[in-house]
Amino acid sequence: MLGGVPSDLADSPFLRACRGLPVPRVPVWFMRQAGRALPEYHAARAGLPMLTACATPDLVTELTLQPLRRYQVDAAILFSDIVVPLKAVGVGIDIKAGVGPVVDQPIRERRDLAALRPLEPSDVPYVSEAVGSLVAELGATPLIGFAGAPFTLASYLVEGGPSRNLERTKSLLYSDPPLWHDLLDRLATITISFLRVQIAAGASAVQLFDSWAGAVGPDDYRESVLPHSRRVLTGLAGAGVPLIHFGVGTGELLGLMADAGADVVGVDWRVPLDQAARRAGPGTALQGNLDPAVLLAPWQVIERHAADVLARGRAARGHIFNLGHGVLPETSPDALARLADYVRERPRTQPE
Amino acid sequence: MLGGVPSDLADSPFLRACRGLPVPRVPVWFMRQAGRALPEYHAARAGLPMLTACATPDLVTELTLQPLRRYQVDAAILFSDIVVPLKAVGVGIDIKAGVGPVVDQPIRERRDLAALRPLEPSDVPYVSEAVGSLVAELGATPLIGFAGAPFTLASYLVEGGPSRNLERTKSLLYSDPPLWHDLLDRLATITISFLRVQIAAGASAVQLFDSWAGAVGPDDYRESVLPHSRRVLTGLAGAGVPLIHFGVGTGELLGLMADAGADVVGVDWRVPLDQAARRAGPGTALQGNLDPAVLLAPWQVIERHAADVLARGRAARGHIFNLGHGVLPETSPDALARLADYVRERPRTQPE
Repeated sequence: MLGGVPSDLADSPFLRACRGLPVPRVPVWFMRQAGRALPEYHAARAGLPMLTACATPDLVTELTLQPLRRYQVDAAILFSDIVVPLKAVGVGIDIKAGVGPVVDQPIRERRDLAALRPLEPSDVPYVSEAVGSLVAELGATPLIGFAGAPFTLASYLVEGGPSRNLERTKSLLYSDPPLWHDLLDRLATITISFLRVQIAAGASAVQLFDSWAGAVGPDDYRESVLPHSRRVLTGLAGAGVPLIHFGVGTGELLGLMADAGADVVGVDWRVPLDQAARRAGPGTALQGNLDPAVLLAPWQVIERHAADVLARGRAARGHIFNLGHGVLPETSPDALARLADYVRERPRTQPE
Repeated sequence: MLGGVPSDLADSPFLRACRGLPVPRVPVWFMRQAGRALPEYHAARAGLPMLTACATPDLVTELTLQPLRRYQVDAAILFSDIVVPLKAVGVGIDIKAGVGPVVDQPIRERRDLAALRPLEPSDVPYVSEAVGSLVAELGATPLIGFAGAPFTLASYLVEGGPSRNLERTKSLLYSDPPLWHDLLDRLATITISFLRVQIAAGASAVQLFDSWAGAVGPDDYRESVLPHSRRVLTGLAGAGVPLIHFGVGTGELLGLMADAGADVVGVDWRVPLDQAARRAGPGTALQGNLDPAVLLAPWQVIERHAADVLARGRAARGHIFNLGHGVLPETSPDALARLADYVRERPRTQPE
């Protein structure tokens, strides 16, 4: 046993790379590998609302496994959505197709915080069930659990709907720091519980998605975001599973995101991985970072960019190949399959 | 005379800071200072479509001058839109309120390039007229002309409408480099002409907005974007006016944007200016970079952030105080007025 993970799993290239241990080749998976880019996903979901699908264990299991039948990837990631734990504690939130999360009563005043009670494992029996059945099916392939980070969850709750600039979120953060911190504290509490449920059920790594953290500069991040992400990550440090911390547009935040307590920092496509390795520091593995839009190009272009990602990734203590953000809906599954094969066929050369 | 600018203007703090010359205080203006945040703007435009307003010299003059009646800023910027030169050469494009530019026939194939003929000064008589009357009114206050950079213009033309990830733009860039480069070459030709018209009519600086350049990583920028921005900027180098080069999310591109031939690089709020100064290099002035959302906070928060921007800006050869992106529509004009006063009251200490 290494931490909480059975030994056959612990030897997997993905988990070894997360821990910065030597690997014969760079492991690979794709954010959003399950879901909208796969025709079998649309067939299986068959019009079921997103959050209903997330609460249906058999369907979650099927949707999580679908990409593994197509791609030789080194990890599965639970099919879910970052608003699932909010819905589970009773927040009036739904995912509108083509729009994103929409909240009935946005959180903007102190009295609104009452909507955010702590999450109990009994609030998400379908998550435990899906993770349990997936772990049994997956054998030596790791399952990644995930949750949204407090800042990104707060941005959905405060904006109430889609927003380009997160004006209301930032306005709250700047104007009422006590309310802001109490809000993120409650979200951190929910997030820790939600990730513990997944780990207890057998997830062998977790990814904390702070998708929109890149909306703030480093000083604001340090003061208003980092303490709460740190509470989540340090709260899970004893669980024995690698902790991945990812956001988009976070070039200036990579060092802080590592400091928050991550074993692995996910990098979007804007920062070359050798540069990212300097920013994240020598103790942190990196995950990323092919531009998802490159997958829309001919294979020679994909190959050239993937080779560059692999070459620059050698600068990191550990490297997990991934995209710099989720798979775009119009991506060809065949291109992803070929990319996974390409990455798996390259030997990993150790840090220079 | 300094370059093409009359000597009373050339002594303005704004133009001196652009050239990295000593100034007694840091000059200040605000991107989008004219327009949507001002009640008098909505009253004056009175429902007139955006591109009609941009082609009405008296109205352009009025809208450009409105913020100068409220704020003690050091420069005016021509009220216009980056799609104006595209419309002027006959592209079927309009600005839909609340949506943004929408193109009748998106450009995706070689035959579509024919829509992009060179721009003649006679295509934009209203621009010359507005600039001329503004320069007469403004006296010793510089007028900044502006245009969209080829990449950002291309993104509107290729996407055809709003887009979160610029998938089609990047797909074209990756899949058909000859067509991509021919498209950007035509756009560079239009942009150079459009900026020359403004300079000839009396603009004493120009800003090239590559608003969405931050969508690509540095290698793609170097190969697919930079050559065309460089052609625009070097094509204007002999005009004797400072050239400002700005985009959002460009933390990894600042050095390249300076290399393209800019006197001043605009920085969004994500990169602290002392860090930006290192990336842009010692020969380049910086403009920026208060998070526009900070203006939605109480004055003490605005003051603290503004003080930090000024302190970090001391690392740059020249610093023009600005926001990190345009004024948000919900911004209080009074907050902007107070901010302009605050900046003007601080003495500029020279680079450390």
